[in-house]
Amino acid sequence: MVPGYAGRLLHIDLTKNIVKKIRLKKSFIKEYIGGKGFGARLMYDMVPPRIDPLSPVNPLIFLTGPVTATGAPASARDVVVTKSPKTGTFLDSNSGGYWGCWLKIAGYDGLIITGRASKLSYIYINDGSVELRDASGYAGYGVYATTKGLIKEVGDNNAKVAAIGPAGENLVKLAGIVNDLHHVHARGGPGAVMGSKNLKAIVISADHRNPKFDLADRDGFNKYNLKIIREVVRGPPEEWARTDGTPIIVRWSNDVGVLPTRNFQVGVFEYVDNIDAEVMRSFRTSKGACYRCSIACRNLTRLKDDKWGEIELDGPEYETIAMGGSNTGVGDFKAIIAWNNLVDDLGMDTISLGNVTALAMEAYEKGYIDKNITNGLELGFGNIDAQMELARMIAYRKGIGDILAEGAREFVMWLGGDAYKMALETKGLEYPAYDPRGSVGMALAYATSDRGACHLRAWPIAEEAFGDMDPFTPEGKAELVINMQDLNAVKWSMIFCDFLDADYEMIANYFNYVTGLNYSADTMRLIGERINNLIRLFNVREGFSRKDDYIPYRIAHEKMPRGPNKGFSVKPEIFNKMLDDYYELRGWNRDGVPKKGKLRRLGLYKDFFKTNIHSM
Amino acid sequence: MVPGYAGRLLHIDLTKNIVKKIRLKKSFIKEYIGGKGFGARLMYDMVPPRIDPLSPVNPLIFLTGPVTATGAPASARDVVVTKSPKTGTFLDSNSGGYWGCWLKIAGYDGLIITGRASKLSYIYINDGSVELRDASGYAGYGVYATTKGLIKEVGDNNAKVAAIGPAGENLVKLAGIVNDLHHVHARGGPGAVMGSKNLKAIVISADHRNPKFDLADRDGFNKYNLKIIREVVRGPPEEWARTDGTPIIVRWSNDVGVLPTRNFQVGVFEYVDNIDAEVMRSFRTSKGACYRCSIACRNLTRLKDDKWGEIELDGPEYETIAMGGSNTGVGDFKAIIAWNNLVDDLGMDTISLGNVTALAMEAYEKGYIDKNITNGLELGFGNIDAQMELARMIAYRKGIGDILAEGAREFVMWLGGDAYKMALETKGLEYPAYDPRGSVGMALAYATSDRGACHLRAWPIAEEAFGDMDPFTPEGKAELVINMQDLNAVKWSMIFCDFLDADYEMIANYFNYVTGLNYSADTMRLIGERINNLIRLFNVREGFSRKDDYIPYRIAHEKMPRGPNKGFSVKPEIFNKMLDDYYELRGWNRDGVPKKGKLRRLGLYKDFFKTNIHSM
Repeated sequence: MVPGYAGRLLHIDLTKNIVKKIRLKKSFIKEYIGGKGFGARLMYDMVPPRIDPLSPVNPLIFLTGPVTATGAPASARDVVVTKSPKTGTFLDSNSGGYWGCWLKIAGYDGLIITGRASKLSYIYINDGSVELRDASGYAGYGVYATTKGLIKEVGDNNAKVAAIGPAGENLVKLAGIVNDLHHVHARGGPGAVMGSKNLKAIVISADHRNPKFDLADRDGFNKYNLKIIREVVRGPPEEWARTDGTPIIVRWSNDVGVLPTRNFQVGVFEYVDNIDAEVMRSFRTSKGACYRCSIACRNLTRLKDDKWGEIELDGPEYETIAMGGSNTGVGDFKAIIAWNNLVDDLGMDTISLGNVTALAMEAYEKGYIDKNITNGLELGFGNIDAQMELARMIAYRKGIGDILAEGAREFVMWLGGDAYKMALETKGLEYPAYDPRGSVGMALAYATSDRGACHLRAWPIAEEAFGDMDPFTPEGKAELVINMQDLNAVKWSMIFCDFLDADYEMIANYFNYVTGLNYSADTMRLIGERINNLIRLFNVREGFSRKDDYIPYRIAHEKMPRGPNKGFSVKPEIFNKMLDDYYELRGWNRDGVPKKGKLRRLGLYKDFFKTNIHSM
Repeated sequence: MVPGYAGRLLHIDLTKNIVKKIRLKKSFIKEYIGGKGFGARLMYDMVPPRIDPLSPVNPLIFLTGPVTATGAPASARDVVVTKSPKTGTFLDSNSGGYWGCWLKIAGYDGLIITGRASKLSYIYINDGSVELRDASGYAGYGVYATTKGLIKEVGDNNAKVAAIGPAGENLVKLAGIVNDLHHVHARGGPGAVMGSKNLKAIVISADHRNPKFDLADRDGFNKYNLKIIREVVRGPPEEWARTDGTPIIVRWSNDVGVLPTRNFQVGVFEYVDNIDAEVMRSFRTSKGACYRCSIACRNLTRLKDDKWGEIELDGPEYETIAMGGSNTGVGDFKAIIAWNNLVDDLGMDTISLGNVTALAMEAYEKGYIDKNITNGLELGFGNIDAQMELARMIAYRKGIGDILAEGAREFVMWLGGDAYKMALETKGLEYPAYDPRGSVGMALAYATSDRGACHLRAWPIAEEAFGDMDPFTPEGKAELVINMQDLNAVKWSMIFCDFLDADYEMIANYFNYVTGLNYSADTMRLIGERINNLIRLFNVREGFSRKDDYIPYRIAHEKMPRGPNKGFSVKPEIFNKMLDDYYELRGWNRDGVPKKGKLRRLGLYKDFFKTNIHSM
């Protein structure tokens, strides 16, 4: 057994009601590390092309990595891997909190869940034992009541819960899986997959003083970890995270004109002063941390108010503030806290939800829809009451919410005509909160991200509008995006969170102390590239290619009307240049398919021939 | 307005509860004729890539054609068009009966249904009026009770009903939409799409003495029609249909060794004498016809028996006899009648259901599954009681039926290991009842069919094992398949049924008498080619390409163990030769994508650029 791993995955088939333990092979660990890497390999081998993501055969896989629960900074992570019902692509969706650590402490590197329970159920993992239990009493419950109820039900105040809300039960494509009340595996609809399995929650009891895994070199690990905490975590690289956390980005984004405002119609928000980090501080009661994380980026906030009552929240983060604030025209931090609190309870992705809400608002203001269709809601920008009600309508699939529950792409199709010009998405995943018209690399990052438009695969704006590169030119952006994507593939496999400023060297050091293997930075880089290429093969097998690596109409053809990027749009010639460069540097052909030579170098050559698995 | 058409489509959005009438444009008629052709154009223009077929935005479109309800032979057809939840491809699924004729007589060339009703509903079209009515009292009802109940409810004994059974309500991917009790739009899961819209049925009252359309040259039409009835319908070409109908094929197929037996493990059935047309005749009470069809191919049967009780059936057809008889090892015609009767009532496709049932039986016999998982069913071949129970388990998604409800591809994935070797499907659609190891052209027909493995796009066995061509060699098969596919695309647009032995000349004549246009046979051929290329563009946009035009493992690699085709399999070199020829003759590139020159000649050049509609 390799140190750093519990050494086994748990396979639970809910149709058969059978639990199997699968030993981790050393070769699997060596080639794919953990987390996202494990998920990429498992999905490629298990899932033939074109299955319905909401069918019982789609696996819902929770994975941890070698640093999970070790006390390394930013290591309290797990990832859920599945075929996305939102995009049809491979999906990995991360979350922090405690739940993922408890899974590993209980002795499992991951869970593979297949089939479908005959009634609403939850899984209870209590160290050695695994049970499928009735959850029909929780049908329709929000995440908060479910989490608290199940903790009481299992009789362990220290039990950790990953749950879905009504959105997941109703197969809403924006539904996430929520760890520990507020940590959401949000993007790509994993909550709908869990809902399709009639699985309301997974509850884990574990003794965190006796984790069921060991480290190869505990002393070495501790010494190195302390050094990183001193030099990196307590040093300048993490200062922003230690102090304000992600809300600081609101100001940065507005300053460079990329803060999505009123459905990306513009990149600066006139009420930015009402929603920035300074305002956040006035609601903050303390900083919070995930399990044993020394960064403690989180802001615990409290709101007490006649309109909203009393709310205690872990958040809001930048993406929530931007997508549910400036992007919907809401310049009121209290309202954003209330919306965040509601959306976590309903169990949805604040990014996609904020995006489709703003889209519906634009459609309303432009006359595509009216009050007859919105159940009377006056859905103009800035109407927070309508925004709250619309979140419920989406989670419960009421009226127009039933259409918005599918996403931006589907909503504009339903509207017909030229409504598609208002949709901000790639591969069916809604744009997050950086407008590429102020950093063209983001257009490439969104277009080539494995799971659709995502800022967590590559964040080139760090070097463009927030750094020293020209944000309006295509040169060098492909290389930047590729480097970030490959590094992140390794981070999401270890699993480190976004906020550890780690390079391959640091990652390799952590990996070596934990596992006793002796990996170089270059090996780590190769693994990152391997993971991204294997996922591309998965997506290619599902029929994705260059045609799916697109940018939305608005980004390409509507010039930013004001702000620092006034007059600019990511014209097709800029985008196509970046995409051509990207494919070439990746070793993919002009249609975006990995070439055989590249696959051979990555040890994936045999996988190419699996493309057509049915006739083999 | 062009004669032969009612001149308008009805668009009903179930979310908005809004009905709109859309005038048919003359250019649309001229380029796409009707039926399948209309559907191809509508789907390409309305539906962006990658939407979930079971989402409310997927349109469910019913269409008729210029000869529908005219009294031409084999013209009592309608087609349902949608994105298939079974395959993800374009889907057109035909049915006979009366319902489609009533739709046109009532004044509509087609219905486009989008959105989702807030509760189980039915649409009632009563000549001019269109209503959405409550059907919640019919939840869970079979097709028969629903049909009879709704006819009573609307108070018109002559009303026609298209309904789904419990399978459609439960989103079973094998679910069809049933016209007039026994005429099923079966393949590709259109019943699941209807179920996803909370739409139980569409009921039409219409006065068939006063059809809301006219013919351009009624006298010419009548004279020509009489000539065709005399020379073709009453002549040798239709003799098989007039006398025994499709059950005659049981004997033909067995004689040439292509009758699927025990999940295509062999092509001859030792109990063929128990299930052939001669046996059928002993149950037949009379011949039956669809609305004004002079062929009257149908066999109305009656069974009275201690085991099965009393059953009156319109059927069974060849495909049902083979897929639910020899293919499941059941050599008992009574049992086949009983199964057919059950499956029509549950509202499923007998082809796909027979296929997955046989697959489950093989899996059971080979030990992939056991009684613990089948709810105690002894699922060996030939066990009709288990076969009946399994049909119910699939329709209600109970136990293992929940997995089989997804299809063969998904079931073998769930089994894992080398179970995929037992699945007979292409693009996720299960093989129908001709084993290509006795006519290799069928392998190409199944692989290149627009909706997955289907014998109704091309039926080259007519010229191979049933004709004069060598059934084991690839030469000439691509041309044969293409010619049949293009001709059929025109037939399914007019809409003629399979059983009219029509060439382009005859089709053009009918079209010209009906519409007053002056189309040549060559124009018709071009339109057939255009329709098939536009549908290919739709599928390409969804990511389909050569990799999806495959043949199953068994067909390629397992030699037929006995019978006339003993020792033969459709080796990859044979298949690839046919596929290469096919793409070349089609004017498609080696990956199966139409080339620009071909599209230009078909008037589809601009559509190629719509591939990436979001960034345009």
